[in-house]
This record gives sequence, C-alpha cells and structure tokens, in this order.
Amino acid sequence: MNNQSMHQWAQDLWPMCRSLTGQGVRDTLDYLGKLIPGMRRHFVPTGYQAFDWTVPKEWTIRDAYIEDMSGNRAIDFKRNNLHVLGYSTPINAVISRHDLDKHLYTLPDQPSAIPYVTSYYSERWGFCLSEVQRAALTDDRYKVVIDSDLRDGVLDFADVILPGERKEEVLLSTYICHPSMANNELSGPVVTTALARWLASLPNRKYTYRIVFIPETIGSIIYLSQHLEAMQERTIAGYIVTCVGDERAWSFLPSRSGNTLADRAALAVLRDREHKVYSFLERGSDERQYCAPTVNLPVASIMRSKYGTFQEYHTSLDDLKFVTQNGLEESFQAYRSCIELIENNERWRATTFGEPQLGKRGLYPSLSRVGSAQDEVRTRMNFLAYCDGTNDIIAISDLIGVAPGACIELADIFHKHDLIKPVLGNPLRLHGARLDAHRIACTTEDR
Amino acid sequence: MNNQSMHQWAQDLWPMCRSLTGQGVRDTLDYLGKLIPGMRRHFVPTGYQAFDWTVPKEWTIRDAYIEDMSGNRAIDFKRNNLHVLGYSTPINAVISRHDLDKHLYTLPDQPSAIPYVTSYYSERWGFCLSEVQRAALTDDRYKVVIDSDLRDGVLDFADVILPGERKEEVLLSTYICHPSMANNELSGPVVTTALARWLASLPNRKYTYRIVFIPETIGSIIYLSQHLEAMQERTIAGYIVTCVGDERAWSFLPSRSGNTLADRAALAVLRDREHKVYSFLERGSDERQYCAPTVNLPVASIMRSKYGTFQEYHTSLDDLKFVTQNGLEESFQAYRSCIELIENNERWRATTFGEPQLGKRGLYPSLSRVGSAQDEVRTRMNFLAYCDGTNDIIAISDLIGVAPGACIELADIFHKHDLIKPVLGNPLRLHGARLDAHRIACTTEDR
Amino acid sequence: MNNQSMHQWAQDLWPMCRSLTGQGVRDTLDYLGKLIPGMRRHFVPTGYQAFDWTVPKEWTIRDAYIEDMSGNRAIDFKRNNLHVLGYSTPINAVISRHDLDKHLYTLPDQPSAIPYVTSYYSERWGFCLSEVQRAALTDDRYKVVIDSDLRDGVLDFADVILPGERKEEVLLSTYICHPSMANNELSGPVVTTALARWLASLPNRKYTYRIVFIPETIGSIIYLSQHLEAMQERTIAGYIVTCVGDERAWSFLPSRSGNTLADRAALAVLRDREHKVYSFLERGSDERQYCAPTVNLPVASIMRSKYGTFQEYHTSLDDLKFVTQNGLEESFQAYRSCIELIENNERWRATTFGEPQLGKRGLYPSLSRVGSAQDEVRTRMNFLAYCDGTNDIIAISDLIGVAPGACIELADIFHKHDLIKPVLGNPLRLHGARLDAHRIACTTEDR
Repeated sequence: MNNQSMHQWAQDLWPMCRSLTGQGVRDTLDYLGKLIPGMRRHFVPTGYQAFDWTVPKEWTIRDAYIEDMSGNRAIDFKRNNLHVLGYSTPINAVISRHDLDKHLYTLPDQPSAIPYVTSYYSERWGFCLSEVQRAALTDDRYKVVIDSDLRDGVLDFADVILPGERKEEVLLSTYICHPSMANNELSGPVVTTALARWLASLPNRKYTYRIVFIPETIGSIIYLSQHLEAMQERTIAGYIVTCVGDERAWSFLPSRSGNTLADRAALAVLRDREHKVYSFLERGSDERQYCAPTVNLPVASIMRSKYGTFQEYHTSLDDLKFVTQNGLEESFQAYRSCIELIENNERWRATTFGEPQLGKRGLYPSLSRVGSAQDEVRTRMNFLAYCDGTNDIIAISDLIGVAPGACIELADIFHKHDLIKPVLGNPLRLHGARLDAHRIACTTEDR
Repeated sequence: MNNQSMHQWAQDLWPMCRSLTGQGVRDTLDYLGKLIPGMRRHFVPTGYQAFDWTVPKEWTIRDAYIEDMSGNRAIDFKRNNLHVLGYSTPINAVISRHDLDKHLYTLPDQPSAIPYVTSYYSERWGFCLSEVQRAALTDDRYKVVIDSDLRDGVLDFADVILPGERKEEVLLSTYICHPSMANNELSGPVVTTALARWLASLPNRKYTYRIVFIPETIGSIIYLSQHLEAMQERTIAGYIVTCVGDERAWSFLPSRSGNTLADRAALAVLRDREHKVYSFLERGSDERQYCAPTVNLPVASIMRSKYGTFQEYHTSLDDLKFVTQNGLEESFQAYRSCIELIENNERWRATTFGEPQLGKRGLYPSLSRVGSAQDEVRTRMNFLAYCDGTNDIIAISDLIGVAPGACIELADIFHKHDLIKPVLGNPLRLHGARLDAHRIACTTEDR
Repeated sequence: MNNQSMHQWAQDLWPMCRSLTGQGVRDTLDYLGKLIPGMRRHFVPTGYQAFDWTVPKEWTIRDAYIEDMSGNRAIDFKRNNLHVLGYSTPINAVISRHDLDKHLYTLPDQPSAIPYVTSYYSERWGFCLSEVQRAALTDDRYKVVIDSDLRDGVLDFADVILPGERKEEVLLSTYICHPSMANNELSGPVVTTALARWLASLPNRKYTYRIVFIPETIGSIIYLSQHLEAMQERTIAGYIVTCVGDERAWSFLPSRSGNTLADRAALAVLRDREHKVYSFLERGSDERQYCAPTVNLPVASIMRSKYGTFQEYHTSLDDLKFVTQNGLEESFQAYRSCIELIENNERWRATTFGEPQLGKRGLYPSLSRVGSAQDEVRTRMNFLAYCDGTNDIIAISDLIGVAPGACIELADIFHKHDLIKPVLGNPLRLHGARLDAHRIACTTEDR
C-alpha cells in the first residue's frame, strides 16, 4: 500500500454528490471497495425501522440551477454540488426574485463561502450560495430547476471485518454522506481506508477490527440495530474517524465515561502532540449513537480541527487545499500508533522477587558511579516497579512518564529475558467502567 | 397560605421569652400550632434521661431589674428579655456596685449591644447589658431583683408528620429556645412554618416530611432518643433551618460526609446563588446531634449569614430590622427549590437504543444548518446522553451544566414522549455513603 | 540509653572500611551488637542464590597506594578509605602515568572531593581521588599497589526482633556497606541503633519490631528471600533509615502505592516540619526491593537530605562535620514520633448517641458565651464527631487539622471517661491498598 495515495483518493471522490442515500453513496463505496479487499456492501429499504428511526426516501439529484430569463445560469449544481439544498424536492418554475429569496441559504458572516445545508426529514427545496452570488441576483424573475427525485429506494452502507486472534473487536467508523467537503467528510473515509489496508496487511492481529462506512446518524443507528449485541459484547475500543485532514492542532473527543480503553490509548498517543480535549458535551458525530446510554460503547475520536470549531466547517471552503496529504498522513500515523498501543497493551507481571540482577544481563552499568547512564537505568527499574500484573502499558506509561512506544520496547526486552510475563485476562476488564455502567443499565428493574 | 405573613409572625413571637424550657416555649408552640394543622405537642419531665443527657429544671422568669436606691430601674427585663442571664436563679437584694459587677455581662467590642448569655447546667444569676449601660451604673449600691424559679417541670417541643407516597422521610428541624433574637432564632421557626404549610398543601408528596420544633441541643438529643431507629431507617435528607432571615450572601454547612442527598440537593440549588461553603468543622447547631457518628443522619443546612459569623449574632442587634420579609421569602424559596428537587430527583433511563428521532416529535430542527437552535437541541441531547439509569437529576444537572429545575422540565417532556422512564429504587441508595458508614458503625465488633 | 552518644558511635565506626562483604562489615556489626541486646548475626556464602541474585566473592582490602619512583605516596588508602575503588582486584606494578589514568576516578565538578565508586559485579582495579590530587600526579611512571583479595567467603548481616503484644510487625532497615561516609551511611545505622535501644526499653510494645542491618540491595534481596512470607503476612509499616544526619530540610520518599500506613504515619509526623515529598520514581535504596511489585511491602523513608540530591553525596565531603549530633537527634525524634503514632493509631468509636454531655464531666464551659474557650471545645467536639469506628487517629488528625500527638491525648481523655472505645480489627486493614494489590499479584492466573 502507499499512503501517498490518500489525497489522490480524496480528489477522485470529490465530485461524487454524496447524501444520506443515492448514487453518490454507491459510487463512493464502489471506489473504496476496490481499495479494501473484503469490504461488504449492505443496504436497507426506505421505510426500514431501526430502533426509533425510519429510513427516508432515496434522493436522486441530476441537475439544479438558477437561470435568468436570458438563459444564463447564475447558480449551477454542476459547478459545485453544495449549491443544492440536500434532499431538495424537484422544481421547475419561473418565480419572482422575492419568492426565490425564501429558498436561498447563505452565510452573512462569510460572504464568499457556500454553506452546506440539508433537510432530510422535512420536504423542502432550496439553493445554497455565497452572499456575493446572492447579491448578483438582481433580476425580477428567475427560472429555477431542481431535477431530483424522492422515491422509495435504499440506504447504502458497507463494512469490513478483519479477524484477529481474539474475538474482541476494535471499531473504526467513518461517514460517507456529505457532498464535496474535504475535512468534514473525505478525510475520514480515506484515512479509514488507509488504516483498513494497513490492518489487512498485518500478519498477526491480536484483535478483530470492525470498520464501518455509513451515512452519519441514521447509518450508525441502522448498523447498531443489526449488530448491537455482538458489538456490546466484543468492542474493547472504537473511534469515529472524521476531520483528520488539516494540519492544525489535534483535538480529542472522549467517550461518555471518558476512561475507556479508547480514551486512554488515544490520550497516551496525543500526550506528545499539542491537542485540545473537548467535553463529551461537545460531541457531534456518530459517538452520539455509539455512546448513547443504552448502547454505551467505548468510542472516542482523535481529530485535527474538530467539526463545528473551524471556520471552513460545512462550507465550500472545506476543500482539498485545506486538507493536505501531510495532514492525512499524520492522522493515519496517530491512529496507527493508537491501534499499535491497543494491540500491545498487556498487563505484565515481574517474574522475580525483588529487582532482577540486570547487570548480569548487560542491562545495568557494572560501575556504580553518580551520573553514569542513570536515566536509562532508572527508566528500566521504574518500568519494572509497576509490572505488578494490574497496570497495563498505558498505565505504566502514565506512571513513569515514558512514551507508550518506549514502554512497549522495554516490555519486549524484559520479556525476552523472561523477567516479566503477560497476565492473561479479558481485555474488556481494561475498561471496566463501561461494563459496570452497562450491567447496571441492563439489570435495573423497571417500574 | 400567605408568605407575606412571615415577618408578621416573627413580630408576634418576638416578645415571648423563650429558653430551654418554660412558658415562653409553650406560648411559641401555641402560636405556631395555630398555623400548622396537625402539629403534635410533646414534653418530657425534669430528670428525664435522653442518651447521655438529663433534662434540667424548668425555668420560669417573671421579672428582673437593677434599680438604684431611688427606685429608678437602670436595667429592666421588661424592656429587653436579653437583660437577664438565661436560667438565672432568683435574687432580691441590695448589693454593692462592686459585687454587682461580677454578675454583669457586656460586650466590650460592641458597646451598644446587649449580649445573649445562658447558664443552663450550672446555677448562677446575672444581667446582660450594653457597655454603655454598665458605664452608667455609677452608684455605690443597687437593688437587684430576679423573680425566677428553677423547679421540676417539663421541657416542651413539637413536631408534625406529613405523610407522602413513600415512607422515606425528609427532616426539617428548627429551634425555639432563644428569647428576642431574630435571625438566630425566629427566622428558623417562621420559615419552617411556611414550609410546613406549603408542604401540607401539596396534593401528592412523594416523601414523608418530619418537621421538628425543639430547643437546641438537648431538644434534638431527646427527639433522637425517641425516634432514632425510625429516623436512621427512613431519613433520606434533612436540614437545620436557622439564620434564614437576613439578606446577605448564602451559607452552606454540609453534613459530616458532605455527599449525602441533603448536601447534593442544597448545593445544586445554591449553584446560581452566591454562597460560602463552610466546613463541617464549623458546625454549631443541631447537626452536631443529627450528624454525630452513631446517629449519622444526612443533615445539612442552608443559611444566609451563618451563626457565629455575623456581628449581630447573639446580641440585641440581631433584631427584626436585620431580618426582613424579603430575606425570609428568599430563604423559603431556596428550601422550597431544594425540596422540589428532592421530590423530583429520579434516575431516568432512556427507552430507545441510540438517540431517539426527536425531529418527528418536533423536538429537533428539520433543517440542518450551523447555528440554528443549537444550544437548546444540544441541551436536550446532553440530558438524554446521561439518562442511563444511574445518574439522578442532580448528577445530570452537574454533568451538563443545566439548572436542576430545567432538568426536571426536560425530564417531564421526554417522559411524556415515552423516551425515558424512571428507574425504581430505594432512594436511600442516592446517598450510599451514609448507609455504608452507618453499617460499619453498627456491625463492627467491639473489644 | 543516651542519644548524646549517636555522633560518638559514628566517629567510632568511621574508620572501618565497610563494603558489600568483608572485615569492615563484621567490625561494624560487632560494634553495634554491643549496643543492641539481642542482635542476631547472619551470613551467607559466596555463590549463595537469593531470588535472581548470586552472592559475590568476599573482598578483603589491606592496603592501597600510588607511589612515585622516589617512594612518596601520592594516594594512600590509609589516609582515606574512599581512595580505593570498591571491590578492586589486587595489583602491584609500575605503570606509566598514561596507563594509570584509565584507573583513576575523579569529580571534575568538585575538584577537592574524592568520589566513592564501586565495581561489585565486574572485576576492575582503580583509585578514587580529587581532581587536585590527580593534577599533582605529574611524573611519567608510578608504582601502584592494591593489596586486596577476592575469594570465596561470606556476606554478613544482622537483625533484631523485638516482640510486641501483636505479631504484626514494623520494619526498620538500614545499610552497612559504605566506607567512610557519614550521612549516606553512618547516620542510618546509628539512628537505627538508638531507635532499637529505645524500643527495647518500652514496657509494652503493641507491635513487633524487625530491625535489619544489611548491605544495600543484595542484602535486602537475601533478607527477603529468607523471610518473604512472614514479612508479607505481618508487616504493617516499614522504613528505610538512611541520610538522617544533616540539618537541612526533611525529605519523604513514599512507598510504591503511596498510601500505606507507613506513608500516612510519616506524612502526619512531617506535617509540621518543612519537607519535600519525592516521587517513588526517585527511590534509590532498599525500597527498590521491599516495594518491588512481587514483594510489595509498605515501606517508605523519612530522610533529611535525600541521597543523590546533595552535593556531598558519595564523596569525601559527606563527613562527620556535615552530620551533626543535633541532626541525628532530630531524626531520631521524627522516627520515634512516627512509631508512637503507629502504636497509638486506633480507630475509636463514640459510645454515646449524639454528643455526650461534656459539661457534667468538666469538659465544656458552663456559661454559653461567644468567644469563651471556643477553640478547645470545638477541637474536642470535632474529634468526637469523627470517632465513628472507621477513622484512625491519622485520619482524624487530617480531618480536623490537629496534630496526631494532640489527637492521641484527646483519645486518652475520652477513653478514660468511657466516651469512646477502640474498634478491634486487623491493623493490616489500615493499609488495605497494599493487601489488595498483593492479592491480585498472587492470584492472577498466568498464561
């Protein structure tokens, strides 16, 4: 695989007009399916019930424009697919400028940006445009055409399961329902695709990986409704992969409890990267569903600029200049480190009573002298001091202030010398808080 | 009922010379009994043993004065009942100014204030007066008269039980043993009376209310000695109502553990009121008994100016100008909010998996657009995110930073839509810390 | 006993050339054995296996010097026993100044100090000297003589057990393996000796005391290998006594968990002494072994200037001017207070319901008056308020902000009045954290 391709993949996916449903979603999944061997395609029909939700009609959009009476197209969907309000009903009429105005969406604060607006569950038509474009609409009457359908159809999604030695799962979830937007859409699927390809290439995965490509909100509701029991039983950590393409500082959105394995691994990886920790109250993507109280999966999110916090968010400025190959690669690396940490997050137990005699193994200086190689030796002894069978690598990394990767290397060295051994146990116990909360939720008697 | 009456009640009660025992207490309870239907009167005789304590003799005070040899009364109990040392033995003698001085109590730091002093458990006689008054006593000899009795009698107190749907109780306790003092006495009984009348008028109380009017310290000892087992079994929260009449900032005195339902509800109510949190080490009223380690009830106190911290405390300056109708009403409202929160402090559990589709219920905007009604919607989703059956309203209010009253309203809306349901359970579990401590205290083996 | 002797003992022990093994250790233990009735001498032979460690050869050092060709001794072991590298192999040769240099150890940053260097587990020879001395070695050739042996022999150590009413033990451990150094060696054995003599003189010790004199690291490994089960079962608190002779500020090194009885008692004693709390990551003496994860004893350390942090450390400047009689006595007092606190660290439970009537016992003022004797009374009531059978003296001292010694006195008064009684229980429960961790370490199944 070649991660250099990520930005190219995003460029290829850019023109497809994704939405909750429709051909743009299918085209996107077709493209990704060629990159990810084993991807499985799924769909549910309009009217399908998933928990409290009903799948809406499928939306087909072929064309949309605003034309002056001379036939000049002032606004054209073919130039930017944000121009049409998502899920617009069809229209073909000549209407007054005054009446048209009620169907125009702009951003007064950002006059040159086209906003991204949708109306999935209430039938409307409309155009999104910049304030500059709106100001140029000075005629009395315009022809408005939206060549769309809202008909019974399907909602498409996809997943891939990469089995590991254990049945316990790590979840990666990303969404494929926004049209031409780069950070708050395409960065997610392309980094997730690169992660899927890297994970597929790993010779011996400890955990099973469940990687999900869905339309946001209703997609995760549908997916959960079909897999809830298995996911609650097996998921040890999960991440929403979104907004991972720009090069600004890092963002972290915790799970509901904030102390699951997903949270702990992500924060250990972010420790050496400047980052902002958001409150769970500021969540806004599919962790709303995965972390809902009755679902309660350990799902967090590592992002660059968090959705809703950057000026380009949900506008035409969230484009492929804002998202860079470098930004995508750094995010890939952060998630890869996170997954590697989860894979190696053993609890180790010392095999000797007292400290081992490291000197005879060449791991301790033979000359006792102030200042000689003290830091390295101290790190080794500190690592061992916490190998009591209760602390995992993340905990020891926190306790001794040494990066998780370096702790994994120390564990390898000591394990080779038979000075520590792994404590077998249910990895779910590594995020006990979730399980307790879940058990309470499931066993409390109702009135 | 009419809360406008509170200050009038205090004015009516002002002249009655309350003490640990005696006619002043009976007059006070007679007056309050007319306001509170169902109030029960109780008494115990002199010599009655309550736990480690013995009820002292009943004190009757009819008159007390210091008169010069010309018959002019320099100090007269009839002008201010603080003038006589509480529980003074009788005297009728002419004595030298020098000998008189040993029986005079003044406040050097506050020359115009009369101090309030008592000697319940050691026989003495004395007069309390201002420094100014003392300086005016320039004659060589004075006639001193205290027309009092210390005889076997009774100690009076009262309570009212307002039954609710559940046998679990909320305790309100106030004291009626101080003579003419307004904040550190009358504010307590009159606000408690207003609360009793409001509670009596509630159509469906969830909890039972135990409202107690007692002389401080020995009164709560006696009351506990007669009701300990029931109170330990049933009390989910309790408050000492005292010092609730002035208009300065709010004070909070926690229970011994500091995390009972009484503490949590009070602090939630005080969150939007400027207040000072005192340490339990600074307690000074009947929580000394209710929170004693072997009693260990969840009892806290919301006050305005805390006893012992304001200059007027235990002097003639603690009068009905310092205590205002507005101050009394604000305190009534704070306690009422606190009780309403306890009544509504359910643990709710979401009935849907994932988020419910609020849009179809008119609780979510149909147009997805940055900035539109975000705050209100976010608050709704955040409230639901914590309805996991383990968090009560107080906890959710803390977690999402929304006032408890607003959380109760959200719960009502979601409950009407069947999106949440209450988790039935022992309300005592809401302050588990107390029960644990209590169980330890009761089951530990002695030597 | 006479603590005035401590500095004299250190002076007597100063010239003995202690090391891991050898005559200097035996001379030291002979000297201390005369001061401590009941001291038991032990030894293990070269090649003895203790856990992961092997006892090295015994080192005998008789003489060592660097002599110029005229027979003048530039460096002479007889003038300072730090001059010879610890565990040097023998040599007797004339070598070039250039070759000699590879065997010289100095401290460039402290030109007038001789460093202390050892090579226990790798055979070398060498001299330690000041930069000034090295600079004076300007000849081309020198005669170097080290008259030493490395032969099969023994490793010596000693202990004393002072039985108490209970079999639970307090451990004091100090080391006797450094040559002429005062704070980072002799202060430890002499303060420990004074403590042993004081403890032996106590008429009724509650706990048993295990007092250990060992060479550092391998000595505690050997000692643990012979007593692990008993020490894990019985030790309720332990201390490494080292660096207790200078007069600078106090230092505290916690146990691994940081919340054992040893930590809590030490921190209570240090509360009124200016002190620095170090991290367990900065440990460096035998707590490395006692607190190793599979050993996990509750062992901490109260020091003055902590090893490794003072300029004189491991140099000839750590001498008997740096260590003073006053410094030794203050350390003795701190450890004595710590032990007295452990001996008296009961959990008390009030015998009365509500507060007792202290007035009838002369413990409460009979006159109720603002400001009279309030602080003393408040302290009494606060102490009683936490006598709930769960808080030990250390906890109450923390909760009410009163020194542990004063709390012990209050307990005595209340106990005499039968107002509190001790709650019998396993003192090990006072540091439950250790036991839990230990149980986990012992019961977790291996792969």
